[in-house]
Amino acid sequence: MQAPAKEPGRVEKSQAAEKLNDDGGNDGEETRRRRRRNPGPAVVVVHGGAWAIPDDLAEASVAGVKRAVVRAHELLSSGGGSALDAVEAAVKALEDDVAFDAGHGSVLTEAGEVEMDALMMDGRTLRLGSVSCVQGVANPVSLARAVMEKTEHAMLTAAGAARFAEAQGVARVPQHELVTEAARSEWERYRRYRHAVRALFSSERAHDTVGAVALDARGDVACATSTGGITNKMPGRVGDSPIVGCGGYADNAVGAVSTTGHGESIMKVTLARLILFHMEAGKSPDEATALALSHMRDRVGGHGGAVVLGRDGCWGVRCSTERMAWAAVAAGSLYYGLQPGEVHIEPLK
Amino acid sequence: MQAPAKEPGRVEKSQAAEKLNDDGGNDGEETRRRRRRNPGPAVVVVHGGAWAIPDDLAEASVAGVKRAVVRAHELLSSGGGSALDAVEAAVKALEDDVAFDAGHGSVLTEAGEVEMDALMMDGRTLRLGSVSCVQGVANPVSLARAVMEKTEHAMLTAAGAARFAEAQGVARVPQHELVTEAARSEWERYRRYRHAVRALFSSERAHDTVGAVALDARGDVACATSTGGITNKMPGRVGDSPIVGCGGYADNAVGAVSTTGHGESIMKVTLARLILFHMEAGKSPDEATALALSHMRDRVGGHGGAVVLGRDGCWGVRCSTERMAWAAVAAGSLYYGLQPGEVHIEPLK
Repeated sequence: MQAPAKEPGRVEKSQAAEKLNDDGGNDGEETRRRRRRNPGPAVVVVHGGAWAIPDDLAEASVAGVKRAVVRAHELLSSGGGSALDAVEAAVKALEDDVAFDAGHGSVLTEAGEVEMDALMMDGRTLRLGSVSCVQGVANPVSLARAVMEKTEHAMLTAAGAARFAEAQGVARVPQHELVTEAARSEWERYRRYRHAVRALFSSERAHDTVGAVALDARGDVACATSTGGITNKMPGRVGDSPIVGCGGYADNAVGAVSTTGHGESIMKVTLARLILFHMEAGKSPDEATALALSHMRDRVGGHGGAVVLGRDGCWGVRCSTERMAWAAVAAGSLYYGLQPGEVHIEPLK
Repeated sequence: MQAPAKEPGRVEKSQAAEKLNDDGGNDGEETRRRRRRNPGPAVVVVHGGAWAIPDDLAEASVAGVKRAVVRAHELLSSGGGSALDAVEAAVKALEDDVAFDAGHGSVLTEAGEVEMDALMMDGRTLRLGSVSCVQGVANPVSLARAVMEKTEHAMLTAAGAARFAEAQGVARVPQHELVTEAARSEWERYRRYRHAVRALFSSERAHDTVGAVALDARGDVACATSTGGITNKMPGRVGDSPIVGCGGYADNAVGAVSTTGHGESIMKVTLARLILFHMEAGKSPDEATALALSHMRDRVGGHGGAVVLGRDGCWGVRCSTERMAWAAVAAGSLYYGLQPGEVHIEPLK
């Protein structure tokens, strides 16, 4: 058990940077974020991707994660919804929001197409559903849930996933409806570079994943993650997001995680599972995430972030990238932030 | 450090069953296998799948894993090959052998097609390459290696993986060349059942994965895993084999694992990574595998097996299924077995 943190108000960026050095040489890249004991039962934490979010997207990103987390929390608190319902609702809201690289707003492959990945996991049973490289659906996260609930399998890919969507009566969405003008411009800019992926990630500039974790009144946790991937990726590229233990993991015995960042690095260290292993070994969500992100940076040079929730309602948000839009509802308050160390609190309306 | 085990000779099945009860209630399903300190530097361990291998396949399965491990070990000992070379050679040999469900001999999907998954991981760098749902190649494991070594990505799926194979000059193999008469008969038999997957796994009867782990003279470890999946799977189904942390994991700091068994269960517990986490916490390869397989059985009702190698050359082989064909070369000897507790030793020719 952990004492409630002091009323934090707004943590200034300079204070946050100072704090970082206390944490042991995070090179100014990692964020010390909030971690608190939640006295109420229902908690939801969402992220809109860890990357160098440009100023012109900052406001929309913060507004988007706030809307998504409030919608998900409403389901939990008044609708009697499950943690699975909450993470699905949060991620659907982010997929439908063009500010984020998932669903509507997904980035384009080398071939100029949208190929999306998503994962959902139920901490009560460890059941999971995942889709990779799926086209023509508006909400990959809901398709991932259908894989979990309506098949004997855990993961479907590409044309097989699309055929399953059709068999489930999921409306087919023509690609042009998912592609924004911004995604197309970005693709045109990046396809001029030969080694786009390296260029994108050395500069930490790339659209990224969305995700959510939730704890419901029954004590069940769940996670969901969804992405359009990285601009100019090879057709068929699958990143970390739909990979269990990498893009997310949920286990009632420990907690739930959704990750974001450089997919290939996250896969190398199985980031979500690594964070939960540290929590099993007694670390708090924040400490566990800090350890795992440090390991990813030191061992494979990768950057990213995560939203993390312990089974007791403790939660943490942390990234080693320039920015990560995130929001949480816990203990009757709405928390959110974008810059490292920045935490705003508002009473929940 | 662990003392060398006594010269084991052949462990009779009845003795093995007795041993099992000493280990604490494994319900007669788990095997206590060999674990020994290897005085020489090069170790390779392979498996041909954990399932209820029928008698008519038993001899071919054992002969196949022996051939594969000897070929891989030759590369390591006389050819100066790396751990990556060794696991690739072992898995290629198993893919080319029709006794195993990988490459040539892969089982068929609901639609009567071959869709293959493979993973390779380099314990030195944590780089990995993976292909899922790939068609028309003879050796998915070599394609996985090409993803690792020749792209910025970690995983390619379906048509994108096939296009990459073509761009790499990999010869396209028509499907009929990969399909055996046995695979087609099995498909025809199982497609009569509505819920094939459940039926297959409740009876623990299904073709399964092949895999290998190796430690080379430089102290590098690697793993590789390859499969045709399960008969009558939905088109696009991806199992555990190509999923990092599930079908395999390799880290020079700890060791390497390749798993086999019910893919959906293995994914729920991220079996390969779980085994290595237990080893990081001080368990031997065999103890770690026993703990992880027990967890998989108790938490999600799943069965499977693994070949496991510590960075110091300790190795372990264990399954919770009726049989698993496996073979190892270590300390100048060839070890192999099929039934729980059965270990044969021959001098290496």
